[in-house]
Amino acid sequence: MRNILIIGAGRSSSSLIKYLLDKSSQEKLHITIGDVSLESAQSKVNNHSNATAIQLDVFNASERSQAIQKADIVISMLPARFHIEVAKDCIAYGKHMVTASYISDEMKALDEEAKAKGLVFMNEIGLDPGIDHMSAMQVIDRIKEQGGKMLLFESFCGGLVAPESDTNLWNYKFTWNPRNVVLAGQGGASMFIQEGTYKYIPYQKLFRRTEFLTINGSGKFEAYANRDSLKYRSIYGLEDIKTMYRGTIRKVGFSRAWNVFVQLGMTDDSYTIEDSENMSYRDFTNLFLAYSPSDSVELKFRSYLKIDQDDLMWDKFLELDIFNPNKKVGLKNATPAQILQKILMDSWTLEAKDKDMIVMHHIFGYQYKEEKHQIESSMVIKGDDQTYTAMAKTVGLPVAMATVRILNGDITTSGVQLPIHKEVYEPILKELEDYGIKFVEKEVPYLGYNPESVKG
Amino acid sequence: MRNILIIGAGRSSSSLIKYLLDKSSQEKLHITIGDVSLESAQSKVNNHSNATAIQLDVFNASERSQAIQKADIVISMLPARFHIEVAKDCIAYGKHMVTASYISDEMKALDEEAKAKGLVFMNEIGLDPGIDHMSAMQVIDRIKEQGGKMLLFESFCGGLVAPESDTNLWNYKFTWNPRNVVLAGQGGASMFIQEGTYKYIPYQKLFRRTEFLTINGSGKFEAYANRDSLKYRSIYGLEDIKTMYRGTIRKVGFSRAWNVFVQLGMTDDSYTIEDSENMSYRDFTNLFLAYSPSDSVELKFRSYLKIDQDDLMWDKFLELDIFNPNKKVGLKNATPAQILQKILMDSWTLEAKDKDMIVMHHIFGYQYKEEKHQIESSMVIKGDDQTYTAMAKTVGLPVAMATVRILNGDITTSGVQLPIHKEVYEPILKELEDYGIKFVEKEVPYLGYNPESVKG
Repeated sequence: MRNILIIGAGRSSSSLIKYLLDKSSQEKLHITIGDVSLESAQSKVNNHSNATAIQLDVFNASERSQAIQKADIVISMLPARFHIEVAKDCIAYGKHMVTASYISDEMKALDEEAKAKGLVFMNEIGLDPGIDHMSAMQVIDRIKEQGGKMLLFESFCGGLVAPESDTNLWNYKFTWNPRNVVLAGQGGASMFIQEGTYKYIPYQKLFRRTEFLTINGSGKFEAYANRDSLKYRSIYGLEDIKTMYRGTIRKVGFSRAWNVFVQLGMTDDSYTIEDSENMSYRDFTNLFLAYSPSDSVELKFRSYLKIDQDDLMWDKFLELDIFNPNKKVGLKNATPAQILQKILMDSWTLEAKDKDMIVMHHIFGYQYKEEKHQIESSMVIKGDDQTYTAMAKTVGLPVAMATVRILNGDITTSGVQLPIHKEVYEPILKELEDYGIKFVEKEVPYLGYNPESVKG
Repeated sequence: MRNILIIGAGRSSSSLIKYLLDKSSQEKLHITIGDVSLESAQSKVNNHSNATAIQLDVFNASERSQAIQKADIVISMLPARFHIEVAKDCIAYGKHMVTASYISDEMKALDEEAKAKGLVFMNEIGLDPGIDHMSAMQVIDRIKEQGGKMLLFESFCGGLVAPESDTNLWNYKFTWNPRNVVLAGQGGASMFIQEGTYKYIPYQKLFRRTEFLTINGSGKFEAYANRDSLKYRSIYGLEDIKTMYRGTIRKVGFSRAWNVFVQLGMTDDSYTIEDSENMSYRDFTNLFLAYSPSDSVELKFRSYLKIDQDDLMWDKFLELDIFNPNKKVGLKNATPAQILQKILMDSWTLEAKDKDMIVMHHIFGYQYKEEKHQIESSMVIKGDDQTYTAMAKTVGLPVAMATVRILNGDITTSGVQLPIHKEVYEPILKELEDYGIKFVEKEVPYLGYNPESVKG
């Protein structure tokens, strides 16, 4: 038996654990699931004979090192900032490690030690980051092998609600950490390059600079720019590419309405509101509008944000009940962002039968001999239920598949790495298809941003 | 002779030094002026027999402590973050200290030690902070003494260009640190209270939430809210006041145009632009606009920021030459804010004969018996020339006057303090009148924000 230690038995671990348990007899795996909540760990084990649940506090050094010493490979499904202590123990005891998180500077610093000990530290092998890297690199490598020169790469991803569960005017529900949705785009300008021209979008304009995309069979979407698209030039080996843009997908109309919260200042997480606890939703909204002894909060809101009388966007705000004078915030010393999150959770929380949906869409532009070509590649996947969500499947399955392959010696490149090499992406993308996770590719006329002739 | 050490011989020290030199024989003062640049210190001494110039690097502990030991009182005119080492030495050697800066937490922490040694550490005794505190407290104390109850306090201040030197479309030139002007309003929401209702304005709306004010004889101005007006409730002893607002004054129309830079992201100081050095002003502007193979930067700018064809604001941007394809930025690895500052300095730098102007305006609302009253109090002062600017006079003279009074034992309250007590503000405000720095007060009908009857 090979021992796999999984740290973190949260919602995102369900498909990962199911995959490994299903393969455990055939692959001779014993799976130990450690979580601060023993109950959580036990519920995931579900009395399976090849699995053990343990109580594990990652900040308890002896608990942590004991559990890691017993494993052959460690999967950390904790929030990214908690990986590093696990990683240091993995170095100390000579264990491989897998995470679905972005490589932090601290993690990167372990590269040489991991290499020296022949350890594979595979990161960014979930959905985004993860499937995005693999599906992009597969097409990019193919284009290059065939002698093409990459001109343009655009990549979009979004966690949405499935059409059959899409029951609100925002066409959005929380399928992942709500806090990250409220804070999305903050902390600096978004930067990318288009046709060789750098572009920077500040937070206050981000949600008014969306681009539209149409995905066959799933309709029209919009996307706002991610923080730093520029760094993907070196990660993907596309240093000279003219266009590099990564964005987050929403249903059309979401961003224009979200921008209203940004403009009001409701997404600010940097200060706390006085007496927030006893405030009504209406009081909260009024904090961000000019004082008036007589005008309604509704009219001040419309006037300030220039929302015309016949603008359907207005109904989105009514639906959230932000003008209700009776609903209380009920959060002590809360920031605007925390209060907004609470208001949104009233309306955007998934119900028992709701399903989520992941949409990923890549655009590759390239030149082959004298001609320019364009390929679009899309993946749309829905959750089965509230346990095996699209998010849990797309994050957890690549992690699980990589883990087994590292144990089996099929992935051998050591050091701190991400899945951009064929050794990793080819077999995993192939196996993901068995689980319904696949990309549909089509050739389209090359568009780029420089049409041959522009009409006056 | 009493020895005064002045650290920092920059532009803001000119009126301070002149005042002390003029009084030096009568008051038996010897003034030592220390600066990193000996030349700067010497030019300020100007061969006066009661003054000495020394080279003084405030980070050199032995230079610093030697100079401080020889003094009876130390004036630090350095940027606020450099005061603390001077302050610690003043505690160690038992010297009084005067600054025109806001009291930092580190400075505040010295309060008990200063009191124990009977030392006066007078801070915030320049213009803003300084004259604002003194002129406000004088009226507030008077209202309270007469049995009135404060309902409203609003205070505005701005460093502007004098009308006779007001030669550009922005009605603005740099009369103080340009960097602070470019970054103004960043770092968190502006907060204040109006008629008992808290109000928060995020940076992205700050310059569209200006209020107008009219100052007799000087015309109409606008003001945007300062960062934290709420804290002045406790500083001024107005804990229960219904309205507390502090703002920065500009000429009408400035803020609406400045907001364009905010919306574009040009005031961002958090990241550097790739290849900024070789970029033209036009390239810089285009960084913040959507890519287009054919549309002009001008039209993209107008369309994005919704500037109508007949909007006179447009000429403000033309005047700054931000669409010029030939002027080079010439700054390596510069942030957007640094580049914008450079562009503005081309247009907004004071010329040799230009004069600056300081405008301060307070509004006091109070109730006496059954009636509500309102007092407006304004100060408008122009610079004499580029040495004795309005800024240098209003910052430096109160510092100088407080220094002499501390030496003479007229100001005796020890500890880390600011000029909100009658002992300080009464004589200094009176003496400032000799230098033309005086407030014109008038009673006006009470307005507040809650008129008795609101029309339909």
